[in-house]
Amino acid sequence: MRYVNVITASVAAVLVSTGAISQEIDIPRDVQSQVTEVWEPIPAEVDAPDGAIPSDAIALFDGENLDAWESANGGPAEWTVEDGVLSVARGTGDIITSEGFCDIQLHMEWRVSEDTEGYDGQDRGNSGVKIQDRYEVQILDSIDNPTYVNGQAASIYKQHAPLVNASRAPGEWQTYDIIFEAPIFGENGSVRKPAYMTVLHNGVVVQNHAQVQGTTAWVGYPTYTEHGCDPIRLQDHNADVDFRNIWVRPL
Amino acid sequence: MRYVNVITASVAAVLVSTGAISQEIDIPRDVQSQVTEVWEPIPAEVDAPDGAIPSDAIALFDGENLDAWESANGGPAEWTVEDGVLSVARGTGDIITSEGFCDIQLHMEWRVSEDTEGYDGQDRGNSGVKIQDRYEVQILDSIDNPTYVNGQAASIYKQHAPLVNASRAPGEWQTYDIIFEAPIFGENGSVRKPAYMTVLHNGVVVQNHAQVQGTTAWVGYPTYTEHGCDPIRLQDHNADVDFRNIWVRPL
Amino acid sequence: MRYVNVITASVAAVLVSTGAISQEIDIPRDVQSQVTEVWEPIPAEVDAPDGAIPSDAIALFDGENLDAWESANGGPAEWTVEDGVLSVARGTGDIITSEGFCDIQLHMEWRVSEDTEGYDGQDRGNSGVKIQDRYEVQILDSIDNPTYVNGQAASIYKQHAPLVNASRAPGEWQTYDIIFEAPIFGENGSVRKPAYMTVLHNGVVVQNHAQVQGTTAWVGYPTYTEHGCDPIRLQDHNADVDFRNIWVRPL
Amino acid sequence: MRYVNVITASVAAVLVSTGAISQEIDIPRDVQSQVTEVWEPIPAEVDAPDGAIPSDAIALFDGENLDAWESANGGPAEWTVEDGVLSVARGTGDIITSEGFCDIQLHMEWRVSEDTEGYDGQDRGNSGVKIQDRYEVQILDSIDNPTYVNGQAASIYKQHAPLVNASRAPGEWQTYDIIFEAPIFGENGSVRKPAYMTVLHNGVVVQNHAQVQGTTAWVGYPTYTEHGCDPIRLQDHNADVDFRNIWVRPL
Repeated sequence: MRYVNVITASVAAVLVSTGAISQEIDIPRDVQSQVTEVWEPIPAEVDAPDGAIPSDAIALFDGENLDAWESANGGPAEWTVEDGVLSVARGTGDIITSEGFCDIQLHMEWRVSEDTEGYDGQDRGNSGVKIQDRYEVQILDSIDNPTYVNGQAASIYKQHAPLVNASRAPGEWQTYDIIFEAPIFGENGSVRKPAYMTVLHNGVVVQNHAQVQGTTAWVGYPTYTEHGCDPIRLQDHNADVDFRNIWVRPL
Repeated sequence: MRYVNVITASVAAVLVSTGAISQEIDIPRDVQSQVTEVWEPIPAEVDAPDGAIPSDAIALFDGENLDAWESANGGPAEWTVEDGVLSVARGTGDIITSEGFCDIQLHMEWRVSEDTEGYDGQDRGNSGVKIQDRYEVQILDSIDNPTYVNGQAASIYKQHAPLVNASRAPGEWQTYDIIFEAPIFGENGSVRKPAYMTVLHNGVVVQNHAQVQGTTAWVGYPTYTEHGCDPIRLQDHNADVDFRNIWVRPL
Repeated sequence: MRYVNVITASVAAVLVSTGAISQEIDIPRDVQSQVTEVWEPIPAEVDAPDGAIPSDAIALFDGENLDAWESANGGPAEWTVEDGVLSVARGTGDIITSEGFCDIQLHMEWRVSEDTEGYDGQDRGNSGVKIQDRYEVQILDSIDNPTYVNGQAASIYKQHAPLVNASRAPGEWQTYDIIFEAPIFGENGSVRKPAYMTVLHNGVVVQNHAQVQGTTAWVGYPTYTEHGCDPIRLQDHNADVDFRNIWVRPL
Repeated sequence: MRYVNVITASVAAVLVSTGAISQEIDIPRDVQSQVTEVWEPIPAEVDAPDGAIPSDAIALFDGENLDAWESANGGPAEWTVEDGVLSVARGTGDIITSEGFCDIQLHMEWRVSEDTEGYDGQDRGNSGVKIQDRYEVQILDSIDNPTYVNGQAASIYKQHAPLVNASRAPGEWQTYDIIFEAPIFGENGSVRKPAYMTVLHNGVVVQNHAQVQGTTAWVGYPTYTEHGCDPIRLQDHNADVDFRNIWVRPL
């Protein structure tokens, strides 16, 4: 049971008129407003200066070395680092981060070779970033290069075509800013929450909280198989692709 | 059109082994892979050069004038434009865009005054961007300035505190990149889909597809009231706040 | 600016201690509680007696006739009605409702023939309910009848296997209770909101707000094509399947 | 395992025309269709006979005793069991299940007293089911009994009014069928996934995958505090309310 004490007469009746609410409460609105204030927990402070990586980010490649990476085939990563640029060493295989990740914000820059003569479709500038070693955002030269749209640059491979094609020309640096929500599995391997991805390609929204249907698959309908916080993989897909400025913020 | 070579009778059985799928199909995997290709519709091309606004964006303020804006009180917008910067003219009221918007990507840059002496909490650098004239992302000086966390900079006002505080110091330019999904109403005013917001503050994810509970309200629990594609509003909250580089892409 | 008047001393300070909130407000909690009350709009009253259809539901088949249905091939529906039961007339084709629907709650009861000898997999008791003429919940005899799991009873065909197999034996009546959120399209045919389905099979949750990826497709990856509030379709898939007690509530 | 007949060299080209897909593949469509079949994992079988509880459900009250319950104040539950009905013993306090639950399907039946004279609003037939000891679906006599709509029967208390009022008269048994997705927390207490609820009241959808904003709170804006798989609580809110047939299926 709830009895409402009448507040002293010195406070005027005020009609709450926000949207669909309709009642009289005998206290000033600025006092009422305090009821819906939340004071804790206080969000952690992140230093995010212009042109630098956020203070809580982990640098995966800052131009110096491949310390954060391994070869997906085992052993050290064999891609090349030169002039602050990380480049696919064709034939050496994919590289994966030593560390695993779940929910993340990922920033990366990539560039496909200008020398595209003789290469078309999926053969032109193909690479990809596979988050948790499974969920691929496609990297491809998608300027004047017809292919299936759920396999062009910035697609979630074979699941979601990008909303628009924000590609830059081969030879130019391009950016991906990815917000990734990892899938969450139940005790029996059931999917309690599927994965979601939001992607900005060169600053343009191309995937907006797209629901991932499972491991991105070349063949067949995608499905989920239980896993943990797995590494990020960059693909050696037999094409010349460069990378720089890769960092990740666990969310 | 893509023609695939006719399969010869000699093709070997191939086991599909992606995730949980398990069956044998007697055709090569590269043919099977074509089944899940999608070729249309082809995403529109957007030119997104580094340091310029995307080719499909509408400039709301590009440093020149207030042509895209009106006073929320009626008549022309009375805020000031000087040296490429738009500034609140305190006491002249909010400004709203002449055009209305539904689903959008919004970019904007803002700066609160360095002269904060004597102002604290909600009184220090307060402004806000109200999308569809209703759903506010708070603007505030949130450096060393305790207030309720669901009312600090980058909060969805009185609904969602930011995941982290990525604020820069007063006097420095800060950015908001907002992906906004407008609410969608049914015939009888019911909510078929609530609004959602993703916000990057200075490049850092601070709201990730947060579900908006209704018009952001100072008092009371937020609720929805049916509306259309309404304007963007910038708040004159009796504080000195500057803006620049405001553009929007309808999604 | 917001000044909080000090409330008279006769009201004790009360610490708000719900979850993460922490502040003192000098008014009684039962007054504070009124701030988050919402009084309008008042939900419509629906009479929902035990064993009868809700007062706001539309009966699509109540045992009497096929008035709500047409043949998908044009002309009147040619399925049979006998003893309050609607039965597939094999070879006459699918039937569709005359009326179209968007967001709905759908109740239906179905029964596959006991005479299953010689029929297996997709050939045993196959039918289906296609909401908006596109999004199929599979009907099949799924007792001791191996088939692909994203094609068994209560699957969203070729997209989502049911969480569990709650099938009853052939010859027994089974129920589907379906909550369907229609996809919502933008001006250019873009998907502003995909479709979602929740399904209870014989009272057991088998699909929980599953995101539909597009028109359910026998071949290829599902995709969306813009459409309006289209009819419900029941499939003549060359099997003996009965129906009764079909009603729908527009949401 | 499924073996498919080897394709002969004579198969005709077939145009894939589902939705937006457009390409020619030189294999029969019934072979193409196999590519998107998923055969594993096979959903568990649940026996769901008419009028009985599903075989994988846990009976929380089947008319016999209070073995599944404790007093929220410690010690054994002190409510009464008579003629297969569980009744609030006013003044003895809430009862909670001994077992905790996360994602669940919950069925329960409840009845408020016919003797409502002198009781109005929140004082008439008030009880509630708090899932995970926090997220309350309101129980109230909501026939001719005005109160705030986000506090009437079938509301998610102080967060979501029901879509419609499907209440039955006092003295009649009413049902709740609830699909509850528990919130999932990150290492630092962050919310990786908020809670969601779908509720059918007397068979009518009244909450459709409503996003829960935090612990349902009498005062203030709801917020989340990290917790595990906590018990279900039934409220002694100083009113005569009966219960029967309560069961739960972990999802």
